[in-house]
Amino acid sequence: MARTKLRKASGLMSRNEWLITGGALVLSAIAGVLTAIHAYPVITFVVSGCALAVLAALVGIGTEQVGSRLGPGATGVLQSSLGNLPELFVGYFALRDGLIPVIQAALVGSILGNSLFVLGLAFFVGGLRHGTQRFVAEVPRMIATLTLLAVAALALPTLVFYLHTPAAGHEDEFSIICAGILLILYIISIPVSLKGGPTSIPEEAEEVVKLWPIWLAVVVLGSAALGAAFVSDWFVAALTPAIDILHITEAFTGLVLVALASNAVEHAVGVQLAAKNKADYAVSVILNSSLQVALGLIPVLVILSFFVGGPHLTLVLPPLLMVALGLTAILSTVITYDGESTWLEGLTLIGLYVIIAVSFWWG
Amino acid sequence: MARTKLRKASGLMSRNEWLITGGALVLSAIAGVLTAIHAYPVITFVVSGCALAVLAALVGIGTEQVGSRLGPGATGVLQSSLGNLPELFVGYFALRDGLIPVIQAALVGSILGNSLFVLGLAFFVGGLRHGTQRFVAEVPRMIATLTLLAVAALALPTLVFYLHTPAAGHEDEFSIICAGILLILYIISIPVSLKGGPTSIPEEAEEVVKLWPIWLAVVVLGSAALGAAFVSDWFVAALTPAIDILHITEAFTGLVLVALASNAVEHAVGVQLAAKNKADYAVSVILNSSLQVALGLIPVLVILSFFVGGPHLTLVLPPLLMVALGLTAILSTVITYDGESTWLEGLTLIGLYVIIAVSFWWG
Amino acid sequence: MARTKLRKASGLMSRNEWLITGGALVLSAIAGVLTAIHAYPVITFVVSGCALAVLAALVGIGTEQVGSRLGPGATGVLQSSLGNLPELFVGYFALRDGLIPVIQAALVGSILGNSLFVLGLAFFVGGLRHGTQRFVAEVPRMIATLTLLAVAALALPTLVFYLHTPAAGHEDEFSIICAGILLILYIISIPVSLKGGPTSIPEEAEEVVKLWPIWLAVVVLGSAALGAAFVSDWFVAALTPAIDILHITEAFTGLVLVALASNAVEHAVGVQLAAKNKADYAVSVILNSSLQVALGLIPVLVILSFFVGGPHLTLVLPPLLMVALGLTAILSTVITYDGESTWLEGLTLIGLYVIIAVSFWWG
Repeated sequence: MARTKLRKASGLMSRNEWLITGGALVLSAIAGVLTAIHAYPVITFVVSGCALAVLAALVGIGTEQVGSRLGPGATGVLQSSLGNLPELFVGYFALRDGLIPVIQAALVGSILGNSLFVLGLAFFVGGLRHGTQRFVAEVPRMIATLTLLAVAALALPTLVFYLHTPAAGHEDEFSIICAGILLILYIISIPVSLKGGPTSIPEEAEEVVKLWPIWLAVVVLGSAALGAAFVSDWFVAALTPAIDILHITEAFTGLVLVALASNAVEHAVGVQLAAKNKADYAVSVILNSSLQVALGLIPVLVILSFFVGGPHLTLVLPPLLMVALGLTAILSTVITYDGESTWLEGLTLIGLYVIIAVSFWWG
Repeated sequence: MARTKLRKASGLMSRNEWLITGGALVLSAIAGVLTAIHAYPVITFVVSGCALAVLAALVGIGTEQVGSRLGPGATGVLQSSLGNLPELFVGYFALRDGLIPVIQAALVGSILGNSLFVLGLAFFVGGLRHGTQRFVAEVPRMIATLTLLAVAALALPTLVFYLHTPAAGHEDEFSIICAGILLILYIISIPVSLKGGPTSIPEEAEEVVKLWPIWLAVVVLGSAALGAAFVSDWFVAALTPAIDILHITEAFTGLVLVALASNAVEHAVGVQLAAKNKADYAVSVILNSSLQVALGLIPVLVILSFFVGGPHLTLVLPPLLMVALGLTAILSTVITYDGESTWLEGLTLIGLYVIIAVSFWWG
Repeated sequence: MARTKLRKASGLMSRNEWLITGGALVLSAIAGVLTAIHAYPVITFVVSGCALAVLAALVGIGTEQVGSRLGPGATGVLQSSLGNLPELFVGYFALRDGLIPVIQAALVGSILGNSLFVLGLAFFVGGLRHGTQRFVAEVPRMIATLTLLAVAALALPTLVFYLHTPAAGHEDEFSIICAGILLILYIISIPVSLKGGPTSIPEEAEEVVKLWPIWLAVVVLGSAALGAAFVSDWFVAALTPAIDILHITEAFTGLVLVALASNAVEHAVGVQLAAKNKADYAVSVILNSSLQVALGLIPVLVILSFFVGGPHLTLVLPPLLMVALGLTAILSTVITYDGESTWLEGLTLIGLYVIIAVSFWWG
């Protein structure tokens, strides 16, 4: 989520914020009712997916508002820990239900969605409006490089397993070691990204945003987080019956649908920024989402899975998923390294995303 | 083929153009006679290969001459659609004869020949003469990046197949979808490359070339294209008996011999440019040939194969061919990204090309 | 080993040089005694490993001293041929004992140790002390690119074998061809790196080093080389019984322990340079070590193995080793391309090294 500088001294919510809050309330309520009355699962799945997307946006807004009262350091810590809260809830409930293939695909899909689809869309929209866009590549490069390193680390358990090395029988321990090392790096990197360090996304000074009273900010953030927890539960519960009816594979559902529900609003923000010709900022925000998933969310869920009970989430991914992740990490690094983007590059990224998504369509 | 600005107002052919036209006529005639009298296949194969190389050059010259009468836009469209005409004919006849392994190897070999061997030769010759060469990397980077993206998309059907994913039984549909998306990108990119867009190779203003009368240009282009169609047929017909006699594998034949016959003159032009210290231009021309094969020629032949009858050309390549293609795409991107070249880099690229070629030698 | 400009006109050894020479003598003597009395193999292994590390440093110092009497050209030739002498001896004795898995792991481990662990350590230490470090990326880029090309060539025999291509039965010939081509490139590149060519590491003019009399330099170099030969023999002889006792796998021993023993001092120098904020120089020295192994040491040992008798050292590596090598080559290229480093990048490189090392731990 973008970090905006809040300038207006006080006031309650803006019109947009009211709309999002209201939408989150209404959609969550409908999703709850549909779940309670055991409605047709496809409808429950779609409605709770939409509710989740709006709640994710509200968590983002709430985090920013609470953070702006506590200073930029606190905002960074809050965003790093709460930014992927809805995805974390979905992951938790999917773990509880043993939906390992869905979670694996959703986590990879979250990175693919950001680094191929949304980055492509941002390049395309920005390029159509403003021609070849140049951006200061320093921060995006650093983020892309770190993501590439993290993805290389994430790929090792899969390689160890499918190359039939002696370590192949030790997926559990090896996955925990990899996850632990990545998580330590993530935690260490938080203060860096706060203090204008290498991966710190510069604040946008231009936007004027209403600053809420602290009680409102805390209430909204708390309610949105609580709502996300409930709605995630309903979303995951409706998932299996819904895709049975629709004949969609678990992998495609995770890769495209679940990843979309948890990231839709974040995606929209990135593309909007590119459309406004803030290419620097857009690329950083988009790639940073991928880094947070690779370095933070995946390790947390892997470690969590050993405490939830049920099958463990190891880092042994289906090979095609790992290849798709590796390709994405390499390509997004290459494409941001030169600090230039064109709409044709954007379109090609989108084309690649579609091709990868299609490859998971057949069951 | 290089886009040169034609300055001299009119006149018939230059000495060089006469030589090429005459050579094409003579070689094509000999190839036809050898085919008609059922000569020793090795000789027919070699002669028609040479005829094809010269005809490919003539198609290039004709395209430029016709285009220069119609304006730069038309030249671009003509070059994009006719630039790979000889390779397309060879591919068509090979499809008709069911020589799928030869076509696959020839297409990959075309990209390897350009992005490893010719680029290496250009760096080597240019570096020996002029020391470390610096070139404006903007256009080469863009072309290399797009090629890398296209290669990633081309690789997915092979990955899907050999990683035994559920989509493995759907090679035909998946190959058509991939080919369709790439072809759409290719067609969309044509106007971009015309209007000085990201992948447009700058015109060379310095060379003075005779401008032919329009009737001559059209006649030469038409005859060369027609000749290429006939000679391709003879070349492909002689291929199987020739390599049976010589005990060469189909893969090596496609990768090295067929790829060479269709690109030899184009290669020579690229290296000449590098020798003249026009490194910018040379790198763009060479890499652009690879992009046209990846984004245009391969998708067209895949789709065509479903209409020709006979075995389909899917994008499921032999794995080593796919790996060689991927390595080439990554390495040529890395090597052009810094905008510098040395003869040692050139020699190393050539060494890698030789090693890959050797790996296809054993049958 | 760093090339330092020697300024002080004459004199015998400095205190540090005395310490290293004395240490080498004492440790070698102890290692010899331990071997003679058939001591507990673990102790012999550790002591001879330490002796080897110090002897490697002494060979480096001696090479520099002899070279400085003969001019920079001779220094370059000497360093290119003697720089990896201790590793060459270890490789030779391991070949003689048929320890192919250990050698393969040690060679890859040498590259991983340099390009991941030491580079990471240099970035980390340098970054902690001096913040984001910027270095002139020209030479590091060239070295990294050449290493990437060499690694691609080295990977082909493994790919050919495990992808079951027709060439899979010809590992021996194919390995020799690959090794031969790389070795030719290495020999050709020596004069380049001498004459301030693309991969020549600039001399450091600032350090003042005592220049030894020529007799001392030759005696020290000769004795250190001879000592390294003996100690390598003892080290390799103690290796198998030691790791049997310790229950460590051959792969882990080669990748981590053997690679460390032969490179420890070289590593220390690279990190020291980074700590002194000489990031340019540090990155070049570190990456150059990897290039020398890939382009020089590996090909020499492959060819040597066909003359030693015993099993051949082909380039068909265990797949995970090849993947680790490929990842390292790509990642170190990407990470040096932007000419910037941070401590977080350094830490992530170290994390990746640890994860790869762990993946070879299980037997």
